Amino acid sequence: MSILAELEPLFYPRGVAIIGASQDPRKFGHLCVRSLLNSEIEGPVYPINPSVSHLVGLKTYPSLGAAPGQIDLCIIVLSPDRVLSALEECGNRGIKGAIIITAGFRESGAETGSRLQREMTRIADRFGIKIIGPNTFGMVNLHAGLNASFTPLFSSLKKGPVAFISQSGGMCHNFSYMAMDDGLGISKIMSLGNRCNLEFSDIIRYLGEDPQTDVIAMYVEGVEDGRALLSVAREVARKKPLIAYKGARSQASGTAAFSHTGSLAGNYPLYQSAFRQARVITVTDSTALFDGAKALSLCPRPSGNRIAICSIIAGPAIVASDASAGEGLVLSRFSPETQERLDRVLSPLFMNTNPVDLTSAQSMEIWSEVFHAVFSDGNTDLLLVILPKQEFYDPMIGGIVDLLIELSSVYGKPLSVCATSPVNMFAGYKARLQDNRIPVYPTPERAARAMGYLVRYALWQSDNSSV
Amino acid sequence: MSILAELEPLFYPRGVAIIGASQDPRKFGHLCVRSLLNSEIEGPVYPINPSVSHLVGLKTYPSLGAAPGQIDLCIIVLSPDRVLSALEECGNRGIKGAIIITAGFRESGAETGSRLQREMTRIADRFGIKIIGPNTFGMVNLHAGLNASFTPLFSSLKKGPVAFISQSGGMCHNFSYMAMDDGLGISKIMSLGNRCNLEFSDIIRYLGEDPQTDVIAMYVEGVEDGRALLSVAREVARKKPLIAYKGARSQASGTAAFSHTGSLAGNYPLYQSAFRQARVITVTDSTALFDGAKALSLCPRPSGNRIAICSIIAGPAIVASDASAGEGLVLSRFSPETQERLDRVLSPLFMNTNPVDLTSAQSMEIWSEVFHAVFSDGNTDLLLVILPKQEFYDPMIGGIVDLLIELSSVYGKPLSVCATSPVNMFAGYKARLQDNRIPVYPTPERAARAMGYLVRYALWQSDNSSV
Repeated sequence: MSILAELEPLFYPRGVAIIGASQDPRKFGHLCVRSLLNSEIEGPVYPINPSVSHLVGLKTYPSLGAAPGQIDLCIIVLSPDRVLSALEECGNRGIKGAIIITAGFRESGAETGSRLQREMTRIADRFGIKIIGPNTFGMVNLHAGLNASFTPLFSSLKKGPVAFISQSGGMCHNFSYMAMDDGLGISKIMSLGNRCNLEFSDIIRYLGEDPQTDVIAMYVEGVEDGRALLSVAREVARKKPLIAYKGARSQASGTAAFSHTGSLAGNYPLYQSAFRQARVITVTDSTALFDGAKALSLCPRPSGNRIAICSIIAGPAIVASDASAGEGLVLSRFSPETQERLDRVLSPLFMNTNPVDLTSAQSMEIWSEVFHAVFSDGNTDLLLVILPKQEFYDPMIGGIVDLLIELSSVYGKPLSVCATSPVNMFAGYKARLQDNRIPVYPTPERAARAMGYLVRYALWQSDNSSV
Repeated sequence: MSILAELEPLFYPRGVAIIGASQDPRKFGHLCVRSLLNSEIEGPVYPINPSVSHLVGLKTYPSLGAAPGQIDLCIIVLSPDRVLSALEECGNRGIKGAIIITAGFRESGAETGSRLQREMTRIADRFGIKIIGPNTFGMVNLHAGLNASFTPLFSSLKKGPVAFISQSGGMCHNFSYMAMDDGLGISKIMSLGNRCNLEFSDIIRYLGEDPQTDVIAMYVEGVEDGRALLSVAREVARKKPLIAYKGARSQASGTAAFSHTGSLAGNYPLYQSAFRQARVITVTDSTALFDGAKALSLCPRPSGNRIAICSIIAGPAIVASDASAGEGLVLSRFSPETQERLDRVLSPLFMNTNPVDLTSAQSMEIWSEVFHAVFSDGNTDLLLVILPKQEFYDPMIGGIVDLLIELSSVYGKPLSVCATSPVNMFAGYKARLQDNRIPVYPTPERAARAMGYLVRYALWQSDNSSV
């Protein structure tokens, strides 16, 4: 069976049951029901609870057996000692996907917990059930309209091409909140928790095949199947970019990581070099992870590392130049024709090589000439444009945004925009740019760093193709 | 004359004139008038323009000589060739402060520009005029209600203790927009531009004496008075923290920097070590500059580098641990008494050493006991608390915020909060925390990094005091 078919019941269930559905609004078993209600899945939702007849407006069932119709996925929110029998019920009911929210297994460090988890795996494997968890917040599949998590808010994520897999529910929330604020399109978000019979390697293989996922972002603390993970990642990276944040890099946090999801954090430099060999982009910051995933999901692949920086104002352009250099990008040296075109329209008082200072560009004609020249420049592979809120050019910004959208589409060169402004002032422009596949960042450094990841992946890919 | 008295006309003018006031809403000469109108300065504003009688509702004057009353500060927005005679007029009128917005002097690279700037300095020195600029966006002094810049928006900055000085107007805007969004309190913001007779060293000396400034943040590309700067910085750093971002670190941007404000960017490692010797905190990112200035302005000084991390959720706590280690902080090892108190109330299923995972803390009593224990712990110098938006503890968050405010005030230990949430959901809590001198950050890494700067400064200070 293909991995897509194998995980179909988990990610595209025709019916979802929740064992441990609760009336207490602060309990996970209640929040999961609300999340499912927020979902737009096609099949029905069955809260299982023997003591009440209705829950948040839904009819409840006393047991899994009493629920009618096709159920593919079951969410289990029970105390640890009751999980195994519930899983057995799932098996008998022919359910092939389970999400086990409950914690207190391998990560507890106690022998009981480890034994229970081994037992859980045995039951699951006997019935062919695939499990996300235990010790997870759950999972979201926007393309199925499915919010199978204890966070109802996640239903407001936007559908799109970025998948995020994590060992930590907290980091899923972190990433998701950034995505909500930023409008980044998400395919699937899941926390693998203790990983019972679905490892990172399995999920990466799945996402590699998943037609709705273009970019795979991940947060990893420690994995047991390192070799499998790297071999799958290497394979998948030929088709789509992977970007990884390795947590638990320090000694102190390594101990904490074990108690978090029962994983050995391992040696960071080793991870780093293994990831590099597998062509997984690595980051050491959650903002960088998000920024990178965004650029990789929106931009075309650059054909080299030569960047042109254009700005309405010099300081941030210098900052972007430093940050670009730090990411292994080089400032493109414009062709003589490009330089001539710039010199013709820009004042010699300002920088008009690269970075280009557009302070003196007082009309749309000049902006247009500059951008046409730079986009068409044969020595430039990608662009970074800095558009800070500056009242003296407020009337022009709409035209500039349109121009950038047009040219980035005509030339197919990656472009990122740094829009420095109070948060709500450029919201409209920002949305318009991002809707047109131009990622927008609030600082020059973040824009440059994201472009760096883009180049790294593109160069790896062209290496692949030449092999 | 003390530096405070010397720069009084610049920063606390009893009247402000603007030569080059314009009717064209896109011209700097117009925007500066609007900024002054947004100001709450006590003295009058005199737009100088011989061809119109009124401008944005203000009476204009044909010349500086025609304007009545006391004028201490003049903003000059003329073409380069007309600046010198205007400055001479200022001198004759007894004006002691000037802001020269006009560009096209030393930074132009042309001999004419350099000559004009030398001439400008001679005139200014003859009359005892202190100049900000040329080639600047201007300056803002919130404590005088003065917006002497071409950005009217800056009048909405909040008054407070952080000064920002920069070689770049763009980076001033960048910093200011962050401050507006975040509610950070600002004393003065200024771009020194080409620095005619006010160097970084002069302004730092001034801000060192300025009772309204507690923290000095700066963006520097290159300075001519390196020795003077470092000696002043070392002196001032005994009293208040300085945090610096050095731009133009790469070769490519160094060339650009010269054309920006006519400065030699110099060798970065040299700068770095010089700054360290002067006890200036250095950063390489504009977000870090802002985050650091915020923590330094809000928090008390920690007495050591031992940090306790408490979180509702494990992953971000592990990330914060890594980031703390990267900043030279160590996770505090709780005293046996503290550990006992935690073990009594927290489930052994989760991390309950340090970082502390509060997933199992289902009541305010437990939160209260945990925070009382950790705040009073003798081995803990500072705290980082992670409060992500999680629907299951929404009803408790208000109480937790109150508790943190109370305890941070009782124990006087620095505390930063990482509040991960969609941007507007925690706005109220965030404001309440920051109003109570607890800085809030959106990611664990940013919170930890800011705490790192706090510790660095505190340890330097205690070194000083022991000398």
